[in-house]
Amino acid sequence: MPFERRYHQYKQLIDSYLEQFVRDAQPRSLYEPVRYILGGGGKRVRSVLVLIACEAAGGSKRDALLAGVAMELLHNFTLVHDDIMDHAVARRGRKTIHKKWDENTAILVGDELLALAYRALLKTTSPRIHEISRVFTEGVVEVCEGQAYDKDFETQPHVGVHDYLHMIEKKTGKLISVSAELGALIGKGNKRQVTALRRYGEHVGRAFQIQDDLLDITADEKEFGKTIGSDVREGKRTFLYLEALRHVRGSDRKLLLAFARNGGVAKSKVKDFQRIYRETGAIDAARERIAHDLAEAKRELRHLRRTPAREMLQWFTYMLLHRTY
Amino acid sequence: MPFERRYHQYKQLIDSYLEQFVRDAQPRSLYEPVRYILGGGGKRVRSVLVLIACEAAGGSKRDALLAGVAMELLHNFTLVHDDIMDHAVARRGRKTIHKKWDENTAILVGDELLALAYRALLKTTSPRIHEISRVFTEGVVEVCEGQAYDKDFETQPHVGVHDYLHMIEKKTGKLISVSAELGALIGKGNKRQVTALRRYGEHVGRAFQIQDDLLDITADEKEFGKTIGSDVREGKRTFLYLEALRHVRGSDRKLLLAFARNGGVAKSKVKDFQRIYRETGAIDAARERIAHDLAEAKRELRHLRRTPAREMLQWFTYMLLHRTY
Repeated sequence: MPFERRYHQYKQLIDSYLEQFVRDAQPRSLYEPVRYILGGGGKRVRSVLVLIACEAAGGSKRDALLAGVAMELLHNFTLVHDDIMDHAVARRGRKTIHKKWDENTAILVGDELLALAYRALLKTTSPRIHEISRVFTEGVVEVCEGQAYDKDFETQPHVGVHDYLHMIEKKTGKLISVSAELGALIGKGNKRQVTALRRYGEHVGRAFQIQDDLLDITADEKEFGKTIGSDVREGKRTFLYLEALRHVRGSDRKLLLAFARNGGVAKSKVKDFQRIYRETGAIDAARERIAHDLAEAKRELRHLRRTPAREMLQWFTYMLLHRTY
Repeated sequence: MPFERRYHQYKQLIDSYLEQFVRDAQPRSLYEPVRYILGGGGKRVRSVLVLIACEAAGGSKRDALLAGVAMELLHNFTLVHDDIMDHAVARRGRKTIHKKWDENTAILVGDELLALAYRALLKTTSPRIHEISRVFTEGVVEVCEGQAYDKDFETQPHVGVHDYLHMIEKKTGKLISVSAELGALIGKGNKRQVTALRRYGEHVGRAFQIQDDLLDITADEKEFGKTIGSDVREGKRTFLYLEALRHVRGSDRKLLLAFARNGGVAKSKVKDFQRIYRETGAIDAARERIAHDLAEAKRELRHLRRTPAREMLQWFTYMLLHRTY
């Protein structure tokens, strides 16, 4: 079966489990928004990764389904609470929970999603359930820490590329690496395989985030499906911004520094940022960083047996990074 | 050792573990408010109960310390998020997190407390760690559901005593019964002991909440340490209110019905409510309900071996219910 079809099949499996998992639950005031957020689509990247990693370690994807569901619930918990903090009005083309209902509902729905994530995870049948729960929990702790660093950056005058990488490792990368590690543990992977899959996830997670920063400035607006330059307009200090800041001089430097002070720039300035990011080599640096992480991710996969699942992970990396949407 | 001294000793043990657990963690923006809420005192009722229940099932309190810490972290998670939802400005005589910092911080601090609760719990060494984690998780799910029912009640025209009992069972009672059950599991209690301790907790939890409703209207203001009648003034439909509503007639009935519509009454009306609650038998009904639950709780303890820990549980029930503060 072609990888794309298989991915779709795995995604559908996750979707149907997710739906079952929250169907009919009471009270309605709590579970209706829970069902709304879970029914809002999403690529189910993390949960599908749990399944493939499990297979790549020699296990059966069926055993990893509940852990996959748990990762998806955990991911949605972070989305609901982050959306409150960011005052986001829309997600996946629909109103955010705190906009459609209210902030109190969104706080509680996020909490419940996290509780449900543990409920799903703990239904996993594995002799390693204790280790599985601990890995999952370290993921939750680090995601919260990552979000705190991200909030700190909004008001800190000096943020370096290194700080940024540390932050995204926790905020974005960790859940990708936890997904791969959980799959490996459930698939009864040996130590070498578990480490390889965790590291694979770390590299892919970082590449994924930097790619996201890059697409915001280089993508084709139609294919990308969202407005180009929104990070620049919102004053978000991305990898590109911080990298450019290291090299930029003169009036361009003033522009970059004013950007952080003013919390973003007008739409007309996005082109200047595109030019500066190109001229300072920030775009090249991002591409190199991504290429490096992808090569490292690939190297980690060599520690696994040569199976269709390993090939699918290779495809998965490609799919994740070469999305134009 | 007298029970009171022993309780104090257990509490100190929990306090020192709690402090160690979050000392030096980074980022400061996240852990400073975490340390603030944990350092704000509190009777540590749930965590001490974990320790005593563990001993009562035949275990050593040392084994239950991390689960005790977990219950305290979980309890504080609920406080921080509930305080946002209730717009509470003070807790234990200090500013609430969202007032001292801001709402975004409070959301994230609550999330982190829940993550840390799992981290503590999962450090527990027990062959039953899987079951322990599941019991804990069902506690988290039910607390969220209880909070949702409580929010629903604010806008629902008709709420019955039965609905109220169902809500407090989840919102208040569940964490008490989970504490007792976790202790029993860690103490390697047999099925009969685990069930007895869980049920003991359910009864004590319900009695505790109804007692809280009762104290708000009958306590001595100086001893109680908070303003009498605050539930009435805030328009909270407590056990007393719902019980009174079943029996009240005439102009008193109008007063009670207006109370819910108007979201509370003026301070001068508190005396009328005290009178109505007395005359309709609501106060007697609450006292009977508490006495019934306490008798049931005591009955459950008979399933345990006759040990000093069992006696301490008896004292613990008494202490919890006969507090005037």
